[in-house]
Amino acid sequence: MSKYWSELIRWLAPYVPGEQPKDRKYVKLNTNENPYPPSPAVLEVIRKHTGQDLRLYPDPNGDILKTAISDYFQVGKDNVFVGNGSDEVLAFAFLAFFKQAKPLLYPDITYSFFPVYSNFFGIEAATVPLNSDFQIDLADYPTDNGGIIFPNPNAPTGRLLHLEPIEALLQRNNASVVLVDEAYIDFGGASCIPLINQYPNLLVTQTLSKSRSLAGLRIGYAIGPAELIEGLERAKNCFNSYTLDRLALVAGTAAMYDRDYFENTCRAIMATREWVVRELEQLDFEVVPSAANFIFIRHRNCQAEELFSELRQRGVLVRYFKLPRIDNYLRVTIGTDGEMQELIRQLQVILSVH
Amino acid sequence: MSKYWSELIRWLAPYVPGEQPKDRKYVKLNTNENPYPPSPAVLEVIRKHTGQDLRLYPDPNGDILKTAISDYFQVGKDNVFVGNGSDEVLAFAFLAFFKQAKPLLYPDITYSFFPVYSNFFGIEAATVPLNSDFQIDLADYPTDNGGIIFPNPNAPTGRLLHLEPIEALLQRNNASVVLVDEAYIDFGGASCIPLINQYPNLLVTQTLSKSRSLAGLRIGYAIGPAELIEGLERAKNCFNSYTLDRLALVAGTAAMYDRDYFENTCRAIMATREWVVRELEQLDFEVVPSAANFIFIRHRNCQAEELFSELRQRGVLVRYFKLPRIDNYLRVTIGTDGEMQELIRQLQVILSVH
Repeated sequence: MSKYWSELIRWLAPYVPGEQPKDRKYVKLNTNENPYPPSPAVLEVIRKHTGQDLRLYPDPNGDILKTAISDYFQVGKDNVFVGNGSDEVLAFAFLAFFKQAKPLLYPDITYSFFPVYSNFFGIEAATVPLNSDFQIDLADYPTDNGGIIFPNPNAPTGRLLHLEPIEALLQRNNASVVLVDEAYIDFGGASCIPLINQYPNLLVTQTLSKSRSLAGLRIGYAIGPAELIEGLERAKNCFNSYTLDRLALVAGTAAMYDRDYFENTCRAIMATREWVVRELEQLDFEVVPSAANFIFIRHRNCQAEELFSELRQRGVLVRYFKLPRIDNYLRVTIGTDGEMQELIRQLQVILSVH
Repeated sequence: MSKYWSELIRWLAPYVPGEQPKDRKYVKLNTNENPYPPSPAVLEVIRKHTGQDLRLYPDPNGDILKTAISDYFQVGKDNVFVGNGSDEVLAFAFLAFFKQAKPLLYPDITYSFFPVYSNFFGIEAATVPLNSDFQIDLADYPTDNGGIIFPNPNAPTGRLLHLEPIEALLQRNNASVVLVDEAYIDFGGASCIPLINQYPNLLVTQTLSKSRSLAGLRIGYAIGPAELIEGLERAKNCFNSYTLDRLALVAGTAAMYDRDYFENTCRAIMATREWVVRELEQLDFEVVPSAANFIFIRHRNCQAEELFSELRQRGVLVRYFKLPRIDNYLRVTIGTDGEMQELIRQLQVILSVH
């Protein structure tokens, strides 16, 4: 604590990302990265643009990437906002839409950056409990709110909501923004994006970090009605004119246009998820139904924290959250078949001596 | 205006960066980019890291880049903060240090992002006029403040402050943070960085966008006492865990280590500046003394706004700010010798028919 710190930062609890270890080589299943490399077209376009133009500022509007995203989703370019990872996009959305007199609502178990943003920006927030199956029940959300945000599929549970309950929420909740964070939607869910033309308060965020294998380049976006996009642009232009660098812009563009590669890698991850779930169930794990590139699991006999440590010692990193309701669960990213076989093998050893 | 916008963003006047035109090829002297390409070592390291690891998140702490910067300046690694351009670093500093009961002070003519941040973050601010020679007179700054920020050299004037008045300010102003934005310090000024060990309230920001030819990659940093750096980390970790992508981290690192290339390009730009100033004076321009990679000029007879338009039509882009006290000045980036010859040639034509 320093006497020079503003009141604002004195009492913060910053977000803690999953570790990026450097001490040894791990089977890294802790931060929901894609086990497959980016599309070859992405690597090619980065190499092509690695030249003297890096001395020039990027396009502050990120036009080429907005065009690629609007082409992909068949929406207008003024329906697209791009940012330095979807975390930055979410931060701008909190400032632009959720700083209201009424409280923002989100699930009690969800992406742990939501309470961090709320504290940081002085936004009053209230949580709505997931049901006992870790499902979001949108019928539980009162309309007397300053905004609603939830991931779909939810994190860290992986559970998916179908479009019907989301549309029912939008029909009754039209006085505040509903933000659906679809970071993991490409692994088995249906996106809300087709609904943006009907609901002026619907904003959807997605990221290239997961399904497009580009966590290393920090590219996220929001899709929504033009007025909401304009709100995000206003916030961004009061913070940083050029949030996406030249290489990220061309790389993201190439990734959006390589639809085949994207679909193939998503399919591969979903196929791996299916057999891993069966294997884990045979090892006496309960697996929350997942539509994400991770699964949320609990063993019937063995404590999650202990499993986490044992796996770590054996070179397998997963994520453990010491939080109410979920402190006996592990979140496990879906890696390659080989990585998941290694996970299963190590779990078999750990559980056999337990 | 949308009913879904928060009060905060309704009344903002966002920052407007210099244009990045796409309509035709310009001699681009409007955004203080470096006319020389990045170091060959930078391009090489980017190509080397353009591979499958882009699927993985970057190091959230940016360790390699912090090490390179701390090596360069011979400061501790805990004296270094890195961000997505110095604009982002400044934004975090406003939140971490300047959100105070007393007003933040900055010059009346300065980097126009300062009032934007102040409005955006609800920070009370007051301006202190430059003297009639466009000099910052730090003796004019009262100590009853919530922080002091100024660029050195100042923008858009290019005027440099020497270390003595800055140190005199630090000696009498110890209750609030003094932030010196040294975006342009490498073109002829002396940095305050050696003072950070003596003054616990001194923070210095710099950028790789100008003197290291990397505007396209968005890399900035702050150097200061460890407690102030920790304040910035707290703010950043409530906003975005990974602000610098993998390629920016390795590129910035290589740029910091290639000291010869950096010194040579800075020297070349300063040499160009000297002869351009003489040429402009012969064309009846007044040139504010500059220690930056740009000059701030006024013609004795011809209006700046008119010159700006005429130059633009003739393919030369400079910057014009329609603001009190400086609305008859042009800010002109120092380009290559060839680009500056073209500027002079076009000015000769414009002025001859005027």
